[in-house]
Amino acid sequence: MAYKAPVKEHLFLLNEVLNLQSHANLPGFADATPELMSQLLEEAARFCEGVLEPLNAVGDKEGCRHDPATAAVKTPTGFAEAYRTMVEAGWSALSVDPRWGGQGLPGVLNLAFNEMASSANMAFAMYPGLTHGAFSAILEAGDEAQKALYLPRLATGEWAGAMNLTEPQCGTDLGLIRSKAVKAGDGSWKITGEKIWISGGEQDFTPNLVHLVLARTEGAPAGTRGLSRFITPKFIPGQDGTPGARNGFRCVGLEEKRGIHGNATCFMSYEGATGFLLGEETKGLRLMFVMMNEARLGVAVQGLAQAEAAYQAAAAFARDRLQGRALTGPKNPDGPADPIIVHPDVRRMLMDSRAVIEGGRALLFWTILHQDIERGATDEDERIRADDVVQLLTPVVKSFLTDRGFKVCSDALQVHGGSGYTTHFPAAQYLRDSRIAMIYEGTNGIQALDLVGRKLPAHGGRAMMAFLAELDAYAAEPADEAVRPFVEALKSAKAQLQEASLWLMQNGVADPDAAAAASHDYLNVVALAGLAYMWARMAKAAQARIVAGDADPYYANKLITGRYFLERILPEAGAHLAKLKTGAAPVMALAAEAF
Amino acid sequence: MAYKAPVKEHLFLLNEVLNLQSHANLPGFADATPELMSQLLEEAARFCEGVLEPLNAVGDKEGCRHDPATAAVKTPTGFAEAYRTMVEAGWSALSVDPRWGGQGLPGVLNLAFNEMASSANMAFAMYPGLTHGAFSAILEAGDEAQKALYLPRLATGEWAGAMNLTEPQCGTDLGLIRSKAVKAGDGSWKITGEKIWISGGEQDFTPNLVHLVLARTEGAPAGTRGLSRFITPKFIPGQDGTPGARNGFRCVGLEEKRGIHGNATCFMSYEGATGFLLGEETKGLRLMFVMMNEARLGVAVQGLAQAEAAYQAAAAFARDRLQGRALTGPKNPDGPADPIIVHPDVRRMLMDSRAVIEGGRALLFWTILHQDIERGATDEDERIRADDVVQLLTPVVKSFLTDRGFKVCSDALQVHGGSGYTTHFPAAQYLRDSRIAMIYEGTNGIQALDLVGRKLPAHGGRAMMAFLAELDAYAAEPADEAVRPFVEALKSAKAQLQEASLWLMQNGVADPDAAAAASHDYLNVVALAGLAYMWARMAKAAQARIVAGDADPYYANKLITGRYFLERILPEAGAHLAKLKTGAAPVMALAAEAF
Repeated sequence: MAYKAPVKEHLFLLNEVLNLQSHANLPGFADATPELMSQLLEEAARFCEGVLEPLNAVGDKEGCRHDPATAAVKTPTGFAEAYRTMVEAGWSALSVDPRWGGQGLPGVLNLAFNEMASSANMAFAMYPGLTHGAFSAILEAGDEAQKALYLPRLATGEWAGAMNLTEPQCGTDLGLIRSKAVKAGDGSWKITGEKIWISGGEQDFTPNLVHLVLARTEGAPAGTRGLSRFITPKFIPGQDGTPGARNGFRCVGLEEKRGIHGNATCFMSYEGATGFLLGEETKGLRLMFVMMNEARLGVAVQGLAQAEAAYQAAAAFARDRLQGRALTGPKNPDGPADPIIVHPDVRRMLMDSRAVIEGGRALLFWTILHQDIERGATDEDERIRADDVVQLLTPVVKSFLTDRGFKVCSDALQVHGGSGYTTHFPAAQYLRDSRIAMIYEGTNGIQALDLVGRKLPAHGGRAMMAFLAELDAYAAEPADEAVRPFVEALKSAKAQLQEASLWLMQNGVADPDAAAAASHDYLNVVALAGLAYMWARMAKAAQARIVAGDADPYYANKLITGRYFLERILPEAGAHLAKLKTGAAPVMALAAEAF
Repeated sequence: MAYKAPVKEHLFLLNEVLNLQSHANLPGFADATPELMSQLLEEAARFCEGVLEPLNAVGDKEGCRHDPATAAVKTPTGFAEAYRTMVEAGWSALSVDPRWGGQGLPGVLNLAFNEMASSANMAFAMYPGLTHGAFSAILEAGDEAQKALYLPRLATGEWAGAMNLTEPQCGTDLGLIRSKAVKAGDGSWKITGEKIWISGGEQDFTPNLVHLVLARTEGAPAGTRGLSRFITPKFIPGQDGTPGARNGFRCVGLEEKRGIHGNATCFMSYEGATGFLLGEETKGLRLMFVMMNEARLGVAVQGLAQAEAAYQAAAAFARDRLQGRALTGPKNPDGPADPIIVHPDVRRMLMDSRAVIEGGRALLFWTILHQDIERGATDEDERIRADDVVQLLTPVVKSFLTDRGFKVCSDALQVHGGSGYTTHFPAAQYLRDSRIAMIYEGTNGIQALDLVGRKLPAHGGRAMMAFLAELDAYAAEPADEAVRPFVEALKSAKAQLQEASLWLMQNGVADPDAAAAASHDYLNVVALAGLAYMWARMAKAAQARIVAGDADPYYANKLITGRYFLERILPEAGAHLAKLKTGAAPVMALAAEAF
């Protein structure tokens, strides 16, 4: 019943749906031959299944322990060793620019690894994920000396990274940050303040740990415009990278959480800690948002990954658990009962899960491919078009995949019946671990607001108009009979998305509350149209293989799952459309005191 | 931020919507004057808020402890004392027939108490809930001596009860039960077997504990038709009720669960334990189903109750937490930020919750009122019509209120943001505790199957036809302008329900898989139509008060919340209808091996 990495799904997307070979102009893509990708993902699967997955329950049970005397954090048994194995195998640097010691492979291939790692052990996979965030921040804004000092060590995972934003009085509203930075006189700064919910803020497996701290410099304005970012290493390194003096901050405690127990969520106290300004003073928040968008895509991966792992556990349980008889007559007549997978309502939950996972994975892979294009294309127009896709879809995949990921985990628990509610099965852990993904890196409500308030209106709606045009163009292409239902569904989903977008443009500008009241439902309409597009593309790719005589039932099954999406999930778009068009009044009519 | 019992909501339903005074012909109803109900519910509120609620977090944190040496279970600190307080105050026997020592008040009034108790402390409230189940079983099937011995002691809660059905190899499929009963020769039976997931199977606050055990008698047929029920007291009582010899069974361990830690979920081992046959031999399952229907209504209460408590916590947090500014300009200009309740997407979650809680509560109260009518009416036709309502709606309220209850708890956690994911706030406990309600006493999938497979086709669809006719009749009554939108929505919901029911009658008989594949969505169509009906009735009752000059904003707010339901929840019925009409094919097309 242990997790199996979905390598075949990944290769289908990379080779047949996204056709990476057709992007050979992008850096690293020519190297990513089908053979190399297959070998690499099989090897990744062995690492995730064999090393990370067995530690998932261990991490959940043991959690992390904090020693108040030394401020040290002990991670669960086996985590440190698994981390070293990962670093030695080079998994962290798969898609990092060779200039910084990476392998320079496509980001979309690295995504497949990230999904596997997060399915196998979400709490563990967060450590390298946060390190990658610190890497990207310094790559984006560091000076040459900072890049030379930190990037190679963060790229490989030799050193780890962590992001410090939240304080007790501010989660979403970073304008309320109180942490202060004053000039030390030697070019560095002294940072003082309290930070909470710092994932991976302390651990026991790297010789250094680089905190990026958001703080307010002396004399800087109040609100979000007064914030700056600081590189604040646990041990202040010399120019050769040798970790030196212990810096003036410490982990003063760990948060008790509902899940992801294997990841240390730290209260950090900065007491005149030495920080090095990253980028320009008072430009901290803008830079943080660059990183945040990347982090949001990472959280979307977590939603998908937990859904996949939970679905697998549920499917295995449903095939094994004997209980009752099929309504159409025994399917296991020699056994005491039939496996519960014969029951249509169990199937409904499993098919719901499959259809969302496979469609959602495609949309996420497609989004990350556009990130690769944005980073690697030489043509400026192509780069801008790709960036538009990434910007538009980042809040959509973050919110949709984590909302639906949680639902898949809940359905998976439900398939287990009473067993799911006990701690003997992994279903309960998936449900608890996945729940945080709807909250951090911007709650899903914030994602929806980002979509309607920033991403949709940006450049006069350019990104959405291009997206709608792409759906139109795809629907106009010739298609086999077997693919026609997908094209028709895509046309209808596109029409609903267009109607919803038009409603928002007409009503959302005049009344920002109307836009915000519509935002959650609008995000779902975008996501469902996106999945309809992906299912059309997957159906076409699968049908092409069937027409070419490929007898692997994988392709026929892909069409079956896709039709389930069209018939039993896509109808939800109509309800979302009806709701969002009711405007702000139903949502805002009650006085605040009446709640 | 602590839970406040919704006494005003209860009194609105009891007095103005259900108009209990108009049922004065039913036993106990004449005593339930508005004044008495108000006093009694205020007193109940003080007990639940003051005694049970403070123990909710304690119970979650401490859980129950099992001593393997003595098989004793220690419940959380304070539970035993609270239990004694409850028994002394007579809360357990509120609606029990005075013949057995109860106060004989309407069951629908007792429901209000049960909701409060379950909101305040679900794990605690399960103990008297299970006792009431044992009471009802013995009332239904016991002989006069059994009734005289057990009923008065179970009614007051002096003794407790527990139900023993599940075994490791059988949860849903009780036909697989292996526990055996052999004749002891003295009229009693010797029971041997293992039972799991026995809620309240052991505790430390009653001098005796009566287990009802489902077991197979010697020579009885395999499957569900060979099962009998046995009264199996922990201490075998003499005729005067004095607990005597310790019976031959023990709690051998406790289940580790995701939630309801304050309730002991026991592994029970029966080793030739003395049992007394309850009712007829081999008729155990049929009798168990009578109890199960009652237990299912109890679980529906839990779904509602956890939703109410979680909603209250979320609303309080949203009014207090300062973060960001309203999109339409500052609402708290002198503070550092506005309370997050100004944000439409936060409102959306709170309004979703209110509309479902208030509508769902009305449907549940209406159902239980019909249980009172079924039990107390002297007219046989009236009794049958009432029983039809209870039978039809039991799976609906169990499944809908627990599914939606969990969603409300998840939304409440979401309103808390990162704080919700930590253990400092009660939101996480509500989410964990509420999750079991979707599973036990028949999973929600089993409820849906019960609806389409038994309740809908029973007596040629009589119950559903009567329900549809009642909605029609209500929609045809004259209504104020303010109530018209509710009537129009009710008509449309009724038309969708009729279409769905017709589809099931035409397709479900020929293809049982089509009925089962449609069952979850059909159940939701029934529930949404039921809530539309209740909202129409509540709107009419509220509007009557407004027209009568009542200036309490409560009534205008009721209309606002109701309109939210019509505009932003009821549209989901259309999506459910579209899904259910796709039949079995999309759900069943994939081969079992492909999952």
